Amino acid sequence: MIQQIAPQTGVAFTLKKGERLKVIDLWGTQVSDMVLFNLHDTREKISSGKTMDFEESILISTGNYLWSNRSRKMMKLLDDTNGRNDFLLAPCSPETFQIMYNNPDYHPSCFENLHTNLKPYDILPDDIPTAFNIFMNVQFDDKGKLSVLPPLSKANDYVLFEAQMDLIVGLTACSAEDSNGGTFKPIGYEVLEG
Amino acid sequence: MIQQIAPQTGVAFTLKKGERLKVIDLWGTQVSDMVLFNLHDTREKISSGKTMDFEESILISTGNYLWSNRSRKMMKLLDDTNGRNDFLLAPCSPETFQIMYNNPDYHPSCFENLHTNLKPYDILPDDIPTAFNIFMNVQFDDKGKLSVLPPLSKANDYVLFEAQMDLIVGLTACSAEDSNGGTFKPIGYEVLEG
Repeated sequence: MIQQIAPQTGVAFTLKKGERLKVIDLWGTQVSDMVLFNLHDTREKISSGKTMDFEESILISTGNYLWSNRSRKMMKLLDDTNGRNDFLLAPCSPETFQIMYNNPDYHPSCFENLHTNLKPYDILPDDIPTAFNIFMNVQFDDKGKLSVLPPLSKANDYVLFEAQMDLIVGLTACSAEDSNGGTFKPIGYEVLEG
Repeated sequence: MIQQIAPQTGVAFTLKKGERLKVIDLWGTQVSDMVLFNLHDTREKISSGKTMDFEESILISTGNYLWSNRSRKMMKLLDDTNGRNDFLLAPCSPETFQIMYNNPDYHPSCFENLHTNLKPYDILPDDIPTAFNIFMNVQFDDKGKLSVLPPLSKANDYVLFEAQMDLIVGLTACSAEDSNGGTFKPIGYEVLEG
């Protein structure tokens, strides 16, 4: 059954080794930030630096693994119908909107939506790592200059993951204007038995 | 006074706000991995994801800042005579040599040299983030494919940092063959008063 994450919110849930997670861009042009923790020891978590090192790529898609800070595989990407994800940029946070959007007011953020939903698992704000940003379209040139462009994903594009260990998953419908082509949409997800 | 970090080892020390740190490639073609923690609360630490987000660049050099997981500036790069550093890849660890070098034997690593030297500050192995890899020459193509090439740094090339807060610094002379053109050399560093 497909669950919906409302616009600019998030969820957290457990996923057992061998189970699959399908993250679906229901309407298109919507990013979903995902963080992963070892269910049995939350000090082990997803690591962008370990993943890019072992996968030898900035871009992570079908066939690649997401690795932990302890150099272990957490997820395999079984399928990716859109093919563009980001693993460079930290989740949008209150400071993102203050510093980069020059907005002093309250603004929902993936950072807040991750740490508030992960609190029942004793995961604190400082524990939130750089997320795997599903459908996020961050372009880079040969000098390394980064540009956040609207996602290339169309309605019902999805990424299908397979858990390589027992996991806690934090997942959002991203809250940042620039990352989502200016509109906030829901994200769908479905847990499939192994 | 210039201190030397022996080949394949590391150090840790404190640096006060306003003090400057000069990291010197004494012989050339040698990488130095650097991690940073808030001296007064070590749960605040250097973040590759926050740095690339706020600096809008994969490549970090003169004029850029290194940011923390709490979206605060930790260091400013005042000068960089070589101009190529890496902030994508995690520090080499025992698993790097097992998985990527197919070497089952003990091998020194930046990860070990960081966490053993940072232990007196109550920083544990799981606390080590992706390091800022000074002089490391990681090339990427337009598809995001990564290649670790010998550093472009010549003897006495340096990066000069200015602390933006009171810091604990972990610093290595990197232990990985591919990152250092096949030979292990010392790294120099000097703390200059603000």
